[in-house]
Amino acid sequence: MRIVFDIGGSVLVPDKPDIDFIKKIAYQLVKISEDHEVAVVVGGGKVSRDYIQAAKTFTPNETFKDYIGIHITRANAMLLIAALGEKAYPFVVQDFRKAWEVIQLKKIPIMGGTHPGHTTDAVAALLAEYLQADLLVVITNVDGVYDSDPRENPNAKKLRRITTAQLVEIAMQGESKAGGSSVVDALAAKFIQRGKIRTYVVGKNDTINLFDVIRGKHNGTIVEPED
Amino acid sequence: MRIVFDIGGSVLVPDKPDIDFIKKIAYQLVKISEDHEVAVVVGGGKVSRDYIQAAKTFTPNETFKDYIGIHITRANAMLLIAALGEKAYPFVVQDFRKAWEVIQLKKIPIMGGTHPGHTTDAVAALLAEYLQADLLVVITNVDGVYDSDPRENPNAKKLRRITTAQLVEIAMQGESKAGGSSVVDALAAKFIQRGKIRTYVVGKNDTINLFDVIRGKHNGTIVEPED
Amino acid sequence: MRIVFDIGGSVLVPDKPDIDFIKKIAYQLVKISEDHEVAVVVGGGKVSRDYIQAAKTFTPNETFKDYIGIHITRANAMLLIAALGEKAYPFVVQDFRKAWEVIQLKKIPIMGGTHPGHTTDAVAALLAEYLQADLLVVITNVDGVYDSDPRENPNAKKLRRITTAQLVEIAMQGESKAGGSSVVDALAAKFIQRGKIRTYVVGKNDTINLFDVIRGKHNGTIVEPED
Amino acid sequence: MRIVFDIGGSVLVPDKPDIDFIKKIAYQLVKISEDHEVAVVVGGGKVSRDYIQAAKTFTPNETFKDYIGIHITRANAMLLIAALGEKAYPFVVQDFRKAWEVIQLKKIPIMGGTHPGHTTDAVAALLAEYLQADLLVVITNVDGVYDSDPRENPNAKKLRRITTAQLVEIAMQGESKAGGSSVVDALAAKFIQRGKIRTYVVGKNDTINLFDVIRGKHNGTIVEPED
Amino acid sequence: MRIVFDIGGSVLVPDKPDIDFIKKIAYQLVKISEDHEVAVVVGGGKVSRDYIQAAKTFTPNETFKDYIGIHITRANAMLLIAALGEKAYPFVVQDFRKAWEVIQLKKIPIMGGTHPGHTTDAVAALLAEYLQADLLVVITNVDGVYDSDPRENPNAKKLRRITTAQLVEIAMQGESKAGGSSVVDALAAKFIQRGKIRTYVVGKNDTINLFDVIRGKHNGTIVEPED
Amino acid sequence: MRIVFDIGGSVLVPDKPDIDFIKKIAYQLVKISEDHEVAVVVGGGKVSRDYIQAAKTFTPNETFKDYIGIHITRANAMLLIAALGEKAYPFVVQDFRKAWEVIQLKKIPIMGGTHPGHTTDAVAALLAEYLQADLLVVITNVDGVYDSDPRENPNAKKLRRITTAQLVEIAMQGESKAGGSSVVDALAAKFIQRGKIRTYVVGKNDTINLFDVIRGKHNGTIVEPED
Repeated sequence: MRIVFDIGGSVLVPDKPDIDFIKKIAYQLVKISEDHEVAVVVGGGKVSRDYIQAAKTFTPNETFKDYIGIHITRANAMLLIAALGEKAYPFVVQDFRKAWEVIQLKKIPIMGGTHPGHTTDAVAALLAEYLQADLLVVITNVDGVYDSDPRENPNAKKLRRITTAQLVEIAMQGESKAGGSSVVDALAAKFIQRGKIRTYVVGKNDTINLFDVIRGKHNGTIVEPED
Repeated sequence: MRIVFDIGGSVLVPDKPDIDFIKKIAYQLVKISEDHEVAVVVGGGKVSRDYIQAAKTFTPNETFKDYIGIHITRANAMLLIAALGEKAYPFVVQDFRKAWEVIQLKKIPIMGGTHPGHTTDAVAALLAEYLQADLLVVITNVDGVYDSDPRENPNAKKLRRITTAQLVEIAMQGESKAGGSSVVDALAAKFIQRGKIRTYVVGKNDTINLFDVIRGKHNGTIVEPED
Repeated sequence: MRIVFDIGGSVLVPDKPDIDFIKKIAYQLVKISEDHEVAVVVGGGKVSRDYIQAAKTFTPNETFKDYIGIHITRANAMLLIAALGEKAYPFVVQDFRKAWEVIQLKKIPIMGGTHPGHTTDAVAALLAEYLQADLLVVITNVDGVYDSDPRENPNAKKLRRITTAQLVEIAMQGESKAGGSSVVDALAAKFIQRGKIRTYVVGKNDTINLFDVIRGKHNGTIVEPED
Repeated sequence: MRIVFDIGGSVLVPDKPDIDFIKKIAYQLVKISEDHEVAVVVGGGKVSRDYIQAAKTFTPNETFKDYIGIHITRANAMLLIAALGEKAYPFVVQDFRKAWEVIQLKKIPIMGGTHPGHTTDAVAALLAEYLQADLLVVITNVDGVYDSDPRENPNAKKLRRITTAQLVEIAMQGESKAGGSSVVDALAAKFIQRGKIRTYVVGKNDTINLFDVIRGKHNGTIVEPED
Repeated sequence: MRIVFDIGGSVLVPDKPDIDFIKKIAYQLVKISEDHEVAVVVGGGKVSRDYIQAAKTFTPNETFKDYIGIHITRANAMLLIAALGEKAYPFVVQDFRKAWEVIQLKKIPIMGGTHPGHTTDAVAALLAEYLQADLLVVITNVDGVYDSDPRENPNAKKLRRITTAQLVEIAMQGESKAGGSSVVDALAAKFIQRGKIRTYVVGKNDTINLFDVIRGKHNGTIVEPED
Repeated sequence: MRIVFDIGGSVLVPDKPDIDFIKKIAYQLVKISEDHEVAVVVGGGKVSRDYIQAAKTFTPNETFKDYIGIHITRANAMLLIAALGEKAYPFVVQDFRKAWEVIQLKKIPIMGGTHPGHTTDAVAALLAEYLQADLLVVITNVDGVYDSDPRENPNAKKLRRITTAQLVEIAMQGESKAGGSSVVDALAAKFIQRGKIRTYVVGKNDTINLFDVIRGKHNGTIVEPED
């Protein structure tokens, strides 16, 4: 199976790098890569937000802030590379085609952000599409896709199984003012739909056993492509 | 004034490169660049569609097709570079920061596409935002923004003055099934809104006098940022 | 056997990309690459001519036109990459050493043009020399090497077996005013001679069975290195 | 005057980016650059230490940790770029020759680390030498060069005026077990000596008035090249 | 006037770098660049031949030897950069378009070889064409173009004024077995002809006064484009 | 075993390239690479000194001279690549991470210098550390580490077995005025110490049998990491 993991920044670097989590997930990724082809995209987290926050006081230029954010996601990618050891490709991959090449070398490509105006979720979705991956696993602070934002609505209900079309709809609602939990942004959701990519959205707790996760045994949400 | 021109592919390469149009627009861009800072993004056109069409029969990989499309937009950019002569930066610019640098050199940066999953309209909007441009001029086959798709609805009405919020709304409608003319796609529209960029959407006919266009005298649509 | 294929632009993109031809040749190249080491160089074709034609009206600069031509050959290379699927290296290769590396990865490197002042035939000959290839197969619109230009002289005779020295002589005649069919240009011919490369020049019809072609069973011309 | 500023990481990012400090120093650098040629090298700080600390638990590989540290210094450089606005070159400069080029463009080049096994102090010293700078200003947490480590020895005495040879000696002592305050490391000190670079070592407090600092009016240490 | 200088390797590095010559020519180039736009291409010389000679005993691969030769020409280019000081662009330029850009920066671009299968004379001719230079000055060990090889034929006569067509003819003879002095190779000569470039071929002695040379006052050969 | 070879420039290019030596060492490196992972760093030698000497008369800029030296070491690396044939990675490697990647491809990475202010000995030590090599073999003109400079002191005694701490001490003495033979410079010695790298320092004579050398059977010095 070819699997893309999309590890949220706040999972990886909640305040500073979560050494324990990185170690554990790296260990499991190495194991999984023995039987599967694995690629990883990582996000920005707290440090990224600090730097963007600082930049915001210097310049209104959103695109430049994106460049800074991308740079920090790549620092996070380097941490994961360090933790994966000989199994990781030692450079942060910046092009989807290179990721494909790295997989041919039997190594794990690690990417961060790639371009202004894109989240790392969108990068992960595009990568999954480019690689024609069998599965995209989104590891996030929220533990699944909800029918409304669980941080605001105590009655929000986690959805266990939705279609990619529903994911797009929820993501687009999330970007309008009213409710909907935007685990992944609308652009990422559209790439998932366009690429017909089976996607699991899971929380940090579920990562204790990634083997179960990739078999669909987890407490998150299963997003299935339409026919 | 700092101006970004976004020249649609089908305007530039309707069937094959429209030599006459390129010559005329190049002449005017050089003139305008004597008093203003100018940057240009060009799209793909017919050749791009031919190549993507061919690729479609070889692979389902949308992202790879995007790479091919990007490559053709850069060929178009090279044509415009040839036509602009000594005033153009001789390489196709691929990074917004480089575009800024080229402007400091008193040359015109020409870009094509930059990244899979983005149209060149989105590139132009991001560039305008990055450069904190005073104006974005979108030159397209349709001669403005309509309240519904003029190619399908004979009663579609051209809108002369809208807000960036309205542009986003129309663009998002355009991407759902029902009507709305998607002159620019939703992502581009959102970048225009986020960047608070004054935008003119004009047809090929209006390009006879670009000096008038940049002064707001044209038959297209004026998109104004909200306060 | 290590084989370089040199596929003429007008064979690949007669008017627009010849989807059928590309599919068939890609299929065969993949098959051949199971037993042989394969590298490919592709030319420009109609689109390249259109773009260069346009550039010609903008600038007298021949070298810049070469850059545009090179860019289009690389678009053609991307099409072939799409058609070859997992067997192709996903980037257009731009350096002969990289082509060698790709072969070590058990993938097919695809090149277009590389430098102003060179045809893609010269690129193919240099690549064959660099790779110390056993065979160079030139696939062209003319179906072999003739003693004079078959498009002008109805009595032109196809040569079935010549030496590399003869090829150089014919190519040099072709570049002087008088007769001689310049299937490959003089520079390419000299590289073939310098590299002592066995070369088959065949027409599009012969590509129905590339397996036969590489075994020397074809209707084209066999060019043999001198001792 | 051509001046290289070497801004210590802990000055720039004590815990998170020191927005206030960055704003103030950027303001002054822009002003100074109106009369002088200015280049800047920035260090890593707290975030860098956090990431290296994390990497240390994953791998014994010192060189890889250096790569991570370099990456974070470049994030810091991007912050300074954001704060300098139109006066800064928008890319983090990675080669001394490029820094020279940027100065010719009347912009300020900003560098971070460049290569494993080097501190950013060494980078700043090499840059000063390459640029044949008139002055190197080291802005650090300690407010000058001391005769022994002020953090350990309460009687340590700040040196107001030393030679580059003395700086090397102190730095080398600092790297042996016993005393000596290593404001700059031995390698950096040697580059300062080799390049005969006048150097001021000042604390954060002195940066309130950089104009005074570059005129030699500060509370730090003046390091003078030997004849 | 825009002038390309093509400095032969054996002029620059007869045995080892000719320090005196480099100093003198650098001094003059700086002076000339005050009134003219200047670009330079340098060749390989003795060191290049030594390295290629060594490579020849290791591998039959001509193309790889070309890469080594190119590398040495770039070392020579770096020497000239050192000698030109602040007037030279500090990197060896590798693309004709970059050379153009450097000229816009009021600096002198220095190139060495660019691609296997090309001499640096061909590079200089292509550069002159790309830049639409007014003049190409070839500085060589032979002091002009002769009607036969002066090293073999004591009666060889120096030609004072020829056309580019004649240059091509002589160069092509030079590449066949019999006579003709190949000051520039056939490929370079063809680029000179194609680009309609006025060319002066002069010996090392003439470089005592480059100002005279560029005014056409020298003892070498004047090559004039046909109408 | 993973082994880094550090071949001194004067061993490789005493006056001009030592063809015989290069051939013999290449032959052995290929053989050794059948059972071991091999990486090589080469130095500058006579040609490098000639070029730096020339540059010295043009500019006081030490850093620029370093760039020239680095360039020549890479020319030397290309020679070794030619001699190693299909076993060598065809490009000169410039980044330690790339060297690691090349080893995964079962090829030998060849590096020269990497950055101003570093010797190639320091590069080799860093590479050995990055690769976590089991052994670093320094091949030099002096045939081991001496207690004082054998070229000045006829009673200098070769040391057969020292610790990395002792190596650092000797190297640091060597860089002060007084005695001590600086086979490797202090920076390189420190990287060897930091990386706890077992190191053999051997003379050219010992290279007749590299198989013995890597087994510790040689006439040079064995440098052992402390516990």
